[in-house]
Amino acid sequence: MIVVLKRGMSPQDLERLKRKIEDLGCTYEVYGDEEPLLRIRSNQHRIARDFILSQPGVQDVFRLTSGHPLANKGHATESTVVAIGDYRLEPDHFLVIAGPCAVESEEQIDEIARALSQVGVRVLRGGAFKPRTSPYSFQGLGESGLRYLRAAADRTGMKIVTEALSSSELPLVSEYTDILQIGSRNMQNFPLLKAAGKQNRPVLLKRGMNATVEEFLLAAEYVLESGNRNVLLCERGIRTFEKATRNTLDINAVPLIKQISHLPILVDPSHASGKRNLILPLSRAALAAGADGIMIEVHNHPDAAKSDGSQSIDFAAFNEVLASVKAFAPLLAKKVM
Amino acid sequence: MIVVLKRGMSPQDLERLKRKIEDLGCTYEVYGDEEPLLRIRSNQHRIARDFILSQPGVQDVFRLTSGHPLANKGHATESTVVAIGDYRLEPDHFLVIAGPCAVESEEQIDEIARALSQVGVRVLRGGAFKPRTSPYSFQGLGESGLRYLRAAADRTGMKIVTEALSSSELPLVSEYTDILQIGSRNMQNFPLLKAAGKQNRPVLLKRGMNATVEEFLLAAEYVLESGNRNVLLCERGIRTFEKATRNTLDINAVPLIKQISHLPILVDPSHASGKRNLILPLSRAALAAGADGIMIEVHNHPDAAKSDGSQSIDFAAFNEVLASVKAFAPLLAKKVM
Amino acid sequence: MIVVLKRGMSPQDLERLKRKIEDLGCTYEVYGDEEPLLRIRSNQHRIARDFILSQPGVQDVFRLTSGHPLANKGHATESTVVAIGDYRLEPDHFLVIAGPCAVESEEQIDEIARALSQVGVRVLRGGAFKPRTSPYSFQGLGESGLRYLRAAADRTGMKIVTEALSSSELPLVSEYTDILQIGSRNMQNFPLLKAAGKQNRPVLLKRGMNATVEEFLLAAEYVLESGNRNVLLCERGIRTFEKATRNTLDINAVPLIKQISHLPILVDPSHASGKRNLILPLSRAALAAGADGIMIEVHNHPDAAKSDGSQSIDFAAFNEVLASVKAFAPLLAKKVM
Amino acid sequence: MIVVLKRGMSPQDLERLKRKIEDLGCTYEVYGDEEPLLRIRSNQHRIARDFILSQPGVQDVFRLTSGHPLANKGHATESTVVAIGDYRLEPDHFLVIAGPCAVESEEQIDEIARALSQVGVRVLRGGAFKPRTSPYSFQGLGESGLRYLRAAADRTGMKIVTEALSSSELPLVSEYTDILQIGSRNMQNFPLLKAAGKQNRPVLLKRGMNATVEEFLLAAEYVLESGNRNVLLCERGIRTFEKATRNTLDINAVPLIKQISHLPILVDPSHASGKRNLILPLSRAALAAGADGIMIEVHNHPDAAKSDGSQSIDFAAFNEVLASVKAFAPLLAKKVM
Repeated sequence: MIVVLKRGMSPQDLERLKRKIEDLGCTYEVYGDEEPLLRIRSNQHRIARDFILSQPGVQDVFRLTSGHPLANKGHATESTVVAIGDYRLEPDHFLVIAGPCAVESEEQIDEIARALSQVGVRVLRGGAFKPRTSPYSFQGLGESGLRYLRAAADRTGMKIVTEALSSSELPLVSEYTDILQIGSRNMQNFPLLKAAGKQNRPVLLKRGMNATVEEFLLAAEYVLESGNRNVLLCERGIRTFEKATRNTLDINAVPLIKQISHLPILVDPSHASGKRNLILPLSRAALAAGADGIMIEVHNHPDAAKSDGSQSIDFAAFNEVLASVKAFAPLLAKKVM
Repeated sequence: MIVVLKRGMSPQDLERLKRKIEDLGCTYEVYGDEEPLLRIRSNQHRIARDFILSQPGVQDVFRLTSGHPLANKGHATESTVVAIGDYRLEPDHFLVIAGPCAVESEEQIDEIARALSQVGVRVLRGGAFKPRTSPYSFQGLGESGLRYLRAAADRTGMKIVTEALSSSELPLVSEYTDILQIGSRNMQNFPLLKAAGKQNRPVLLKRGMNATVEEFLLAAEYVLESGNRNVLLCERGIRTFEKATRNTLDINAVPLIKQISHLPILVDPSHASGKRNLILPLSRAALAAGADGIMIEVHNHPDAAKSDGSQSIDFAAFNEVLASVKAFAPLLAKKVM
Repeated sequence: MIVVLKRGMSPQDLERLKRKIEDLGCTYEVYGDEEPLLRIRSNQHRIARDFILSQPGVQDVFRLTSGHPLANKGHATESTVVAIGDYRLEPDHFLVIAGPCAVESEEQIDEIARALSQVGVRVLRGGAFKPRTSPYSFQGLGESGLRYLRAAADRTGMKIVTEALSSSELPLVSEYTDILQIGSRNMQNFPLLKAAGKQNRPVLLKRGMNATVEEFLLAAEYVLESGNRNVLLCERGIRTFEKATRNTLDINAVPLIKQISHLPILVDPSHASGKRNLILPLSRAALAAGADGIMIEVHNHPDAAKSDGSQSIDFAAFNEVLASVKAFAPLLAKKVM
Repeated sequence: MIVVLKRGMSPQDLERLKRKIEDLGCTYEVYGDEEPLLRIRSNQHRIARDFILSQPGVQDVFRLTSGHPLANKGHATESTVVAIGDYRLEPDHFLVIAGPCAVESEEQIDEIARALSQVGVRVLRGGAFKPRTSPYSFQGLGESGLRYLRAAADRTGMKIVTEALSSSELPLVSEYTDILQIGSRNMQNFPLLKAAGKQNRPVLLKRGMNATVEEFLLAAEYVLESGNRNVLLCERGIRTFEKATRNTLDINAVPLIKQISHLPILVDPSHASGKRNLILPLSRAALAAGADGIMIEVHNHPDAAKSDGSQSIDFAAFNEVLASVKAFAPLLAKKVM
């Protein structure tokens, strides 16, 4: 962190600033006489830029290192391998997660689980507690939904990922699920992040629709720092001025995060586009950009889905996606799982 | 809601669509033969556009009415008057809420409360549970913070507004506070919105930094629909491409919301700009645009604040803001409270 | 400008970097041994951050000073007073520019000019060359439009502001107009900026709908650097995710630019909101935030306007706006002109 | 286009509205008695939504069809095949355009052209007139740049694409270039679009950094409607809140545009990310998403480039990109050209 000091900063202000930096357990060096610079070195991630910026005599502050040491590559020498039950998501895997937006009935999730498991899908998605923009929309089946999802997965030997909307729901959801999902709207629900860090399921953390990559990694840092090292990131589109699609898939973020972090990164083309007929090309693009997997909304009757129908695909369309990523994966030295 | 049907939609699909609309308790009319239109009338807010859009034979869907009947003007014949203890925020009031970003110590909040109450401020803000982007930043004093805040307010005869970060924290926060704040990052924390709707404190709901006005009012609808009619809205800046300021104050939203809704709307110029020296002009602009109040970060020593120091102002600067809005308010037939 | 060098940068790379900085006519200092810093001092605005960032051995680059010395306050000791004919826009003035989006006929502009001049408006706006998103929309009357506009202004003793869409149109437009407008879509039309800088009319430069404040001031710098010091800035709303309004008025930018630059800044609430019934509160907010004026779309028959009708107001509504800003202006020590 | 009329619209207002629609050469139908709907059918693209919306008695207006009939698939039965000299960009081709951001000297462009042509690149990019945010940045070599570029291309049998910044520059640029580029900042420079439509070179139209897909296709419509049917679209990243990358590559737009339009669409990963080490994965993703080609900034000495160095790659990195897209192309039934 580099601190630019104002020309004519008083010696007292400089002393006070130095003391504050030391109090935070950091070291520093001062360069130059007129308009001096101050460089803070160790443990800088514990200092908020804003805090230093508001000190008297400080003109500007620049961060040189990241504020998320645990999420960064420097921390782990190798890519993190997340264990999902007895399956391990290795760096040369491309994991395909599929399932409906919401569990709607025992029959629905059962039919979907059977169809997906038959074509080799290992992880089933499905929401029991649904975050809905309107209070009048279907809010999910709650615990029954979790029960149906678990049963469908057990019958087919699949693992499941489902969302908890709050830290108080988390224990219940954890009883049923294999992977705990933290949704886009909750990416900065800090009590939930901390609670997720203290339970022993892997966490699938979706990027907030308005979160920068930096904030996304800081959200992961909350989970990691609370003790849970099994974090899967998921890019699901960001909010921009473009309204032809529901969100804008930030494909840049995929290789960028692969370069910064040791955590696996998946892509959700369903939410990232909101359009059924973009899922296939975007799934391929995710793979080509270096993602470690995709998560897709698949429904037995997309046109009758209680939520997200227009971005869900049917089994036939899903099989096409699967065939396509299987054809491309070897060129990236990846195996579709 | 207008549903545009595809040329050549099958009669069976049309029948199925009609039945679904009836099942949701709505009525409809069909117009035209070739490429017909279908108009849904009663109870439309219970229908998600997305749900109709995904039905077979449907080409496009347009909403004519809002999805938030309780937040809309149609619902209440007059502006909602929120009661804060025995104070009532009348439509001709301009409420000034002030206080630090975070409660840092008993002495700090006490000194601030005394200074603010002396100049007539009725409602004290201060965070005890702080949502922080980094897990390494100061997270607030927790329950001690609430205690100090309550004591400082009681000594000075003030009311307080403070944030709960989750539905499980809510009962504790409700014990201490007069107004329950739901922060920007939690605007779509639906369990929290529902819980806030079931307790008996007024709710100050801050707009999500990426939320449209429509989504903001739908979040209010969650609280209203759960039974709590005392909702204060607060515009606090949205996230845009501009980085010279922390956020972009959406001043358009103030008169727009006044035209749509019967709920009072405040402005938070501190978060909306992130810059201390913009607070005065933005406070005046909020008043001029028709806001019902402002919420400002004031600190006894802004340069030593543990959070948000660069956007906090000191007592002298706050008094200037107060004097300025007091000079302008009569022209808008408002009284500064 | 601070250049952070990579640990272990080779001495040759460092020498090469120093030479490049000298070649650009700048001076520098080097601080520290391990991971050294380099501080560039004089004439830094001539160096693109990007250029230094791409040099071997460079890890990061931070700008300390602005890249637009002529637009900055440092350059002029006082606010720039722009002369519009024999009228001078003084710092204590609040200039109200009004008129239709487009000149539609001789009668239309004449009727509007008479009505506006009667209530004291000095500067008439009206487009003859219209930038339209669709090639099928009304493109303006061209030179006839300019002629009608000039005649209407001359009959009423008004000055005019109208847009040139390209440097080749500029000489023609300059013949007729008093103020040359560069529209939002042309804010980075650099040949047009340079040409505007070489003619002797004042320039009203509208902010690009996607331009940062920094880029806005750099666009002004193009005009200033080409020799024309009479530049009026105009904030007209930026593009964000919000679709309830046409654009988002960046009210933050008004006091921010007043603090950075000596140039006058106006606000265009018509384009910034796209909504007729927001013009009044936004005009007042612009004044309250410290703007030096407003530019409003006024039409004799807004409902029959060939363009921008839904954001144009009629004479009665305009008179209300005028009365309102006149009531507020004295509190800001401003006179409405 | 569906026009929702207000309950109780006067019969006179309805008659006036009907007449206006007829005057624009369109037909309509009226449905329902109470709160009637009006459906406009033929030639609707000639009507601005805004115009109808501002008529008395109109409550809302929804577009059913696009405003760019010539850019839409409906117009051409097959994909447009753009001829670049004697080369034709067929639908099963994947065109790789490469070259420096700016022509810097005769030697530089010559060395780059030789290296690129040796590995099979047919189209050389290079700017002679550069749109630069700061007036103090390198503005390009002007006509000498065009001359060097032409000579380098001729020596190697390549075709070139280069930008004209204004309609007045266009004739000069057209003399030298094979493809006329309209840059991002000029996507809504309408005089330039019209002029480009009247000359006989193919046009490479880059998406504005703030343009929606709809506006992008409307800009293409300007060129098409002026008579030039040889338009290549190019997605080059849009501006969002994310600052870790220069822009956000809108990968969604690629398959979306392929579904809407018959025009070829390329991707520029250099501008879309601003980061050298993202070019390879993004080039692959563009291909996988269905793009018809890529345009990449390649420099003989990226670290010494006068502009855009940090997003330019060297020959070795370019060869890797080329090898990678060549390996993937057959799976998409495409040939790299």
